[in-house]
Amino acid sequence: MKILDGKLVSDKIKHKLTKEVNQLDSKPGLAVIQVGNEAASEIYVNNKQKAATEIGLEFRHLHFGNISEEDLILEIIKLNNDDAIDGIIVQLPLPRYMNEELVLNSIDAGKDVDGLTDINLGKLFSNKDCYIPCTPLGITELLNEYKIDVAGKNVVIVGRSRLVGKPMAMLLLNMDATVTICHSKTIDLAEFTSHADILIVAVGKRGLIGPKMVKNDVIIIDVGINRIDNKLYGDVLFDDVIDKVKYITPVPGGVGPMTVVSLLKNTIESYKKRH
Amino acid sequence: MKILDGKLVSDKIKHKLTKEVNQLDSKPGLAVIQVGNEAASEIYVNNKQKAATEIGLEFRHLHFGNISEEDLILEIIKLNNDDAIDGIIVQLPLPRYMNEELVLNSIDAGKDVDGLTDINLGKLFSNKDCYIPCTPLGITELLNEYKIDVAGKNVVIVGRSRLVGKPMAMLLLNMDATVTICHSKTIDLAEFTSHADILIVAVGKRGLIGPKMVKNDVIIIDVGINRIDNKLYGDVLFDDVIDKVKYITPVPGGVGPMTVVSLLKNTIESYKKRH
Repeated sequence: MKILDGKLVSDKIKHKLTKEVNQLDSKPGLAVIQVGNEAASEIYVNNKQKAATEIGLEFRHLHFGNISEEDLILEIIKLNNDDAIDGIIVQLPLPRYMNEELVLNSIDAGKDVDGLTDINLGKLFSNKDCYIPCTPLGITELLNEYKIDVAGKNVVIVGRSRLVGKPMAMLLLNMDATVTICHSKTIDLAEFTSHADILIVAVGKRGLIGPKMVKNDVIIIDVGINRIDNKLYGDVLFDDVIDKVKYITPVPGGVGPMTVVSLLKNTIESYKKRH
Repeated sequence: MKILDGKLVSDKIKHKLTKEVNQLDSKPGLAVIQVGNEAASEIYVNNKQKAATEIGLEFRHLHFGNISEEDLILEIIKLNNDDAIDGIIVQLPLPRYMNEELVLNSIDAGKDVDGLTDINLGKLFSNKDCYIPCTPLGITELLNEYKIDVAGKNVVIVGRSRLVGKPMAMLLLNMDATVTICHSKTIDLAEFTSHADILIVAVGKRGLIGPKMVKNDVIIIDVGINRIDNKLYGDVLFDDVIDKVKYITPVPGGVGPMTVVSLLKNTIESYKKRH
């Protein structure tokens, strides 16, 4: 089987986490802050809520239709000081009138289970204990589960976002991979992708990667989520590359569930550190 | 001329900075903390002192032969609260018995002119205003001075340190370069270096890069400083590659002076922000 089955692996991990939560003295608490009514955010928050309650976490959903930046930060500070809350995440994107940086960095670094505060991102540079952003963390867990060693491998990442591309690069460097980061300004993308042992694509552009852009036996991690006519597609032409790949993540059912499960893991880790 | 002359450019910048400092109401203050008696540290601190006083900064050298981690942090806190001090740097390496992370992160992020606190490194991820580590910053200044545009270029960095390789990669990504980071676990280093438009080498291994490892018209930035029989050598075999390169930095007189000048610039910037 060529499929890196994120659904299966995440179910297995959730089973383990459920047992772990049962043995704790109290329920770890996860708070998700949502501002506005983006359809995609709605779905993501629901997925997180479902997974969190499934494994026995306390889930608190703070949903604001309209709130000032100042009031939002006050809400975050309340959660920082709330002993029942171990993890705080802000569903992105925030409305344009808000300073995303300012809002994110008002989260206590010890409860920043999305790993997006300056302090946690900075610690990644030094390979120090920190909360790692959930998508990169979930990807490394998935690779681990399939015993895919990245050390010495030529890993090419397409996309340089703060949520995926950049932290993924730091994490993989810390794991001894040789890492190339490509993006929209890369002149000949195929020149890089076609040499990758492991290709991680996080752009959000359906059909970006086809069979001519990858070598035989490549391992592909497709982080793209493109919703078209209510159906989900990755950034990679799955059906066209499947014969060439050694492994590939499907969309949906690949990276997505692993991201959610990493959030749960980080929240439980925070609970343990705080108790 | 193929030489990226860091000495010349840094002199030019120092000249400009001297004028700038003369127009300020008071002298910006730079404090350098040194622990132990490493010969190399001695030289680096002297270079910084010489450059700082040359352009009119107030230079404070705190040199401890032997000090506990706790007392060192107390000294840093005193400097954090000292209004005459705008920049604080800790000369690395610290003695092994000290927790470098803890010491560095006790520096106020606003006075962290070496850009090595978690907060400043984290801000680099998001391309936000921050103090950028002096070597990567100096390298981009040097490239600017010679009107070398990195956007869309294939830049290969050899070395993944927190001081050079990793922040350099983030900085270049923010400048639209396609970036590959190689290191000691990279299996076929030449495969990567030989495709580089711009090659940045920061390993500390004399003779690591020879003519067979680079393509014609490459631009080489040699960050290596290897002291052998009291003579300085870079990581690149300068005489052997000179015919192939478009540009190259010499060692000494390339990246070194640019690093020092970046420290001065960051200190003046901190003074301005604080006044």
